[in-house]
Amino acid sequence: MKYYAIIVAGGKGNRMNLAVAKQFLELDGKPILMHTLEAFNQCVLNPEIILVLNIHQHLFWEELCIKHDFKIPHQVIKGGQERFDSVRNGLKNIKGKAIVAIHDAVRPLVNAELILQSYQMAEEKGNAIAAIQPVDSVRIKRDGQDSEALSRDELYLIQTPQTFQVEQLRKAYLQPYRNEFTDDASVVERAGFSIHLLPGDRSNIKITYQQDLEMASFLLKKKGF
Amino acid sequence: MKYYAIIVAGGKGNRMNLAVAKQFLELDGKPILMHTLEAFNQCVLNPEIILVLNIHQHLFWEELCIKHDFKIPHQVIKGGQERFDSVRNGLKNIKGKAIVAIHDAVRPLVNAELILQSYQMAEEKGNAIAAIQPVDSVRIKRDGQDSEALSRDELYLIQTPQTFQVEQLRKAYLQPYRNEFTDDASVVERAGFSIHLLPGDRSNIKITYQQDLEMASFLLKKKGF
Repeated sequence: MKYYAIIVAGGKGNRMNLAVAKQFLELDGKPILMHTLEAFNQCVLNPEIILVLNIHQHLFWEELCIKHDFKIPHQVIKGGQERFDSVRNGLKNIKGKAIVAIHDAVRPLVNAELILQSYQMAEEKGNAIAAIQPVDSVRIKRDGQDSEALSRDELYLIQTPQTFQVEQLRKAYLQPYRNEFTDDASVVERAGFSIHLLPGDRSNIKITYQQDLEMASFLLKKKGF
Repeated sequence: MKYYAIIVAGGKGNRMNLAVAKQFLELDGKPILMHTLEAFNQCVLNPEIILVLNIHQHLFWEELCIKHDFKIPHQVIKGGQERFDSVRNGLKNIKGKAIVAIHDAVRPLVNAELILQSYQMAEEKGNAIAAIQPVDSVRIKRDGQDSEALSRDELYLIQTPQTFQVEQLRKAYLQPYRNEFTDDASVVERAGFSIHLLPGDRSNIKITYQQDLEMASFLLKKKGF
């Protein structure tokens, strides 16, 4: 079996008011994105890495790789308007039978074990979606209605990697884009496949706000890089 | 109008495998709980503070207060079996008309502004529940069924303070305990009141896991205590 990782770098840094996209921010002396690629490179299944990046960032990334002497093999392909389009572009580069992990560029703390489990479960069940349960109570508030408590035990906060047999992705990404496609699981689910959750990792945080970067720096030191 | 804060310290530290309950762990040189009480003490409405604590921790807390020369006025009353019972015990100590903020002992980073807004909104609307929206996609998985995507835009992760006109709490806490009462909003909602959400604060984290304590330490330093 052939294994792939599509690393999706969609962020423009809007939530942090940054000039540079989040995936390029430095974490422990090098861009976040390099940590992410290293994690996949450490997986024993030796996945082929496809990095999907906004075309205007390709040169910048190339320069960063030279500056940091970054040698991990990966292809860089061009991103699309939405995350959905970027993943679809990534898929075009995968031929034949494969297991494909899709991962946020800004989740640099993903560990090799979770990646491995994700590939194994997807190979067996069709897909594997990393998820953790919320610590907080959760409510739902629909337009014009009062909010309503949900049962916390039934809820899952979804992470990446989200890993699939490539056939599921090929079929799912033929669909037209919809607003509610906030991740790959939602796209694949809409194409008619059952979604399988895999216990994620609380340290596998998504760097969205400034404080997340500080948290990541802390967690990274603990991880002993 | 009279303002109260019921600080609920339910934790036994199980999730961190600790001998000491989470609220007593040191954060920046003093127990988490002291930070929490200080935040309420800084509110301009000058709320009266009621600390609900397991009876076996009262003496330990007293000693901590002496050791740290902690002078913020507060009553200490005894906790119950469930968080629900603890809040009910706290309520018994409130007479007459009042606005009551209920707050987790292990959310020490709550800021005075959120507390103030919470009292003001509850006074106007009946209650005010601090909440933030999730960054991650969220799924629901009911027993024996496949998981299903929820619309992230409609979801809220609930924090504390949860603040109420005391009449709502008095009526709500006459109900028998139910498993789905994971917070006060769910208790009050079940008594027939509409729940009003107030924008919370991403820094107002609940210290549940070891990494949260480290995060809190970071955030505290930024806050400039």
